[in-house]
Amino acid sequence: MDDNRLAAELRAIVGERFVLTDSAELRAYECDGNTIFRRTPRAAVLPASTDQVARVVRLLASNGIAFIPRGAGTGLSSGVVPQNGEVMIGLSRMNRLIELDLRNHRAVVEAGFPNLKITQAAQDAGFYYAPDPSSQPVSSIGGNVAENAGGAHCLKYGVTTNHVLGLTVVTPDGAVVRLGGKSLDATGYDLVGLMVGSEGTLGIVTEVTVRLLRRPQGFKTVMALFDSIAQASDAVTGVIGAGMLPGALEIMDKQAIIAVERGPLRVGYPEGQEAVLLIDVDGLSAGLDAQVEAILRICREAGCTEVRAARNLEERLKWWANRKGAFGAAGNLAPNYVVQDGVIPRSKLTEVLAVVGEVGEKYGLTIANVFHAGDGNLHPLICYDARVPGSTGKALTAGSEILAACVRAGGAISGEHGIGIEKMADMLVAFSPDDIAVQLAVHDALDPRDLANPGKIFPC
Amino acid sequence: MDDNRLAAELRAIVGERFVLTDSAELRAYECDGNTIFRRTPRAAVLPASTDQVARVVRLLASNGIAFIPRGAGTGLSSGVVPQNGEVMIGLSRMNRLIELDLRNHRAVVEAGFPNLKITQAAQDAGFYYAPDPSSQPVSSIGGNVAENAGGAHCLKYGVTTNHVLGLTVVTPDGAVVRLGGKSLDATGYDLVGLMVGSEGTLGIVTEVTVRLLRRPQGFKTVMALFDSIAQASDAVTGVIGAGMLPGALEIMDKQAIIAVERGPLRVGYPEGQEAVLLIDVDGLSAGLDAQVEAILRICREAGCTEVRAARNLEERLKWWANRKGAFGAAGNLAPNYVVQDGVIPRSKLTEVLAVVGEVGEKYGLTIANVFHAGDGNLHPLICYDARVPGSTGKALTAGSEILAACVRAGGAISGEHGIGIEKMADMLVAFSPDDIAVQLAVHDALDPRDLANPGKIFPC
Repeated sequence: MDDNRLAAELRAIVGERFVLTDSAELRAYECDGNTIFRRTPRAAVLPASTDQVARVVRLLASNGIAFIPRGAGTGLSSGVVPQNGEVMIGLSRMNRLIELDLRNHRAVVEAGFPNLKITQAAQDAGFYYAPDPSSQPVSSIGGNVAENAGGAHCLKYGVTTNHVLGLTVVTPDGAVVRLGGKSLDATGYDLVGLMVGSEGTLGIVTEVTVRLLRRPQGFKTVMALFDSIAQASDAVTGVIGAGMLPGALEIMDKQAIIAVERGPLRVGYPEGQEAVLLIDVDGLSAGLDAQVEAILRICREAGCTEVRAARNLEERLKWWANRKGAFGAAGNLAPNYVVQDGVIPRSKLTEVLAVVGEVGEKYGLTIANVFHAGDGNLHPLICYDARVPGSTGKALTAGSEILAACVRAGGAISGEHGIGIEKMADMLVAFSPDDIAVQLAVHDALDPRDLANPGKIFPC
Repeated sequence: MDDNRLAAELRAIVGERFVLTDSAELRAYECDGNTIFRRTPRAAVLPASTDQVARVVRLLASNGIAFIPRGAGTGLSSGVVPQNGEVMIGLSRMNRLIELDLRNHRAVVEAGFPNLKITQAAQDAGFYYAPDPSSQPVSSIGGNVAENAGGAHCLKYGVTTNHVLGLTVVTPDGAVVRLGGKSLDATGYDLVGLMVGSEGTLGIVTEVTVRLLRRPQGFKTVMALFDSIAQASDAVTGVIGAGMLPGALEIMDKQAIIAVERGPLRVGYPEGQEAVLLIDVDGLSAGLDAQVEAILRICREAGCTEVRAARNLEERLKWWANRKGAFGAAGNLAPNYVVQDGVIPRSKLTEVLAVVGEVGEKYGLTIANVFHAGDGNLHPLICYDARVPGSTGKALTAGSEILAACVRAGGAISGEHGIGIEKMADMLVAFSPDDIAVQLAVHDALDPRDLANPGKIFPC
């Protein structure tokens, strides 16, 4: 089917204005938050309903044309980058709140609905949606489902898959199926769990049923500064060892602190700190002060140079805005950066961070570290200058070496950003051929013609 | 392959003593905890290692012989009952604790390891394994994985799938694959999640990596008696509406109370009560008394006839032993009973329990109700007398009508017992043909020759 005919048939489904074919318009669809990999799609189509998505997919499938579902485009592993003239299916118009079922603690939203708006819709009644990736003001719930997004508070509350109970999915041949529902347990195979984190390679999620949690009665945040990462890690081990489960346990290292202190979200941390540790505790108000006292003591015993609880809500939010702005602030260290996403057992933190330092020295690259210390999810921000020939390649190689170290430590090559294009080769480090064959068998069962986001996740 | 040759080749793998072919010996393998469906397997083989399981499966697969993995046989949906001469693969000898990794809050055990022994191995260090099906003293972790077992405390802590991070699996053609690991997030497709709850139809789980949780600092248990189920349900709604998340919220109705009070686990509840509500709260000691006070007030406001907190550990354990013994105690009401396992939105409790009462009247059957009220998981115990012709059929039909009511209320046909043979027909009530086709596509990808526990879950 030629391009004009394709565009005309797509327009017949979604309306004139919602099919983009102009190369200038398509530029917005050539990459995600990871700007290294870029390619222009054949066209972009913006359906407004599950029915329209299904009709679009049936049109494409009957002509053997592959497609890529796209939410807000804030992903970090190039999971929505075309490889070979795929049609982009943008879910941004599907941004309705379908049902707010407060009595049963559930919300049903369309895939393009932004993460944070779920909380905004429910907060007056005392509820919130727990997974909180740094992108949450803009990233869509459909994209969160595709990547199994996490966030700073997933240590205590779990990642996206722990909060998604039901999905409406358009299969790669255009059928509409409903998986799961409002109950906590799926009946039959847990296909909701299979879809979450499948990066758009098994079909297109169009509607999502999520759990809402009661907002905790109270929050307290402690900030501690350390002369070494090892001391900060000791404090983390001490807090968890004392039987507490904080909502979040986050560390930024020296370079990350420098980066964010150069920007508008600066806190004013004293210069030369090796580590900032942020600890959030939440729950019934009655128990919080005792927890804060215990945390202050543990941080002092670990050798911190300064530790204190936030004096008020404003200070707490300022500390968190600073932490959540750390990725973007890496731009203050170098013209370009790529953020990696490895997971390790908590007990291996100091050991693997030493490897990250060695890898940076080997390639002459500054690497800032921001990490979810409580669950061992590392985010090395590898800084480079794309104008220097070979620099981009060095940054990618450094990232792969760090991921290999995570695997050697008994960890994994992605905590919350997915594999996409960026980490396909690293799959061979993490998995045996037999392990990958089982995953491919599942893929081929649901997408035998490889039409749904082809060329992602699997290197073969 | 004739029976003698098969037995000889199996014995060459697992040793002389560990292949059973005598019909008297095989009788122990003809049903699970649901005694309605029974059939004798062709043979039973008891391997001692993953390698032996793989060699057994390769022998069977190369001869086109189907097999059934079996843990402790405490399942309730006839998930391990042979249909057509399958070979039973019993995992009871694979009962080793492989690794207790307290620093990372993980344990690795073989599939035949009993659920409760995980807690026993970790409790001196202050840890426990959270999912607590009533069968936990004897049921194996492998069986828990197959059925995605729940328990009284899954309201707060989640079901098996929320606590299993890694699996070693022997595929239906005898390959050994390792899925997941010690990290919270799976990379690639979440095949661990797919395996959990797949009832042995996708392969045999031989090793399981689980999360260990810190034992809460304190527990308190409140018991309340009511003149009606509706009042008890109001109390449940009130507790959750007040922002508390108890570890467990359990209701037994009049018939269940009568049953258990006739047995050795009696508490001495006053006669004629319509409902007993048990509420467990746990967490930091500091906050518990305030929660108990709030719960006492809410129960009184809901119109309870009596409410109080357990005076000591002994009383708390007595209340819980009584509740956990309620299934078995149904034998005090009639010679036989079958326990159903439907899930509904919490807001529909009173409405669906009324339907359960109507179904009981229609068929002239006593139905006792024991349910996880917090998460809407009903367990109607349908009592009958198998010696009366037609009685077994009536009990099964009544169960199906109750499940259909759960589906109409927006719920599901299984919370934690699985589909097995017992509820295959009910799958057609719960799922559309398209929904089932997607599940079957996944099955056929991983078990194309239908060798792993055939004739379960899917009615077609």
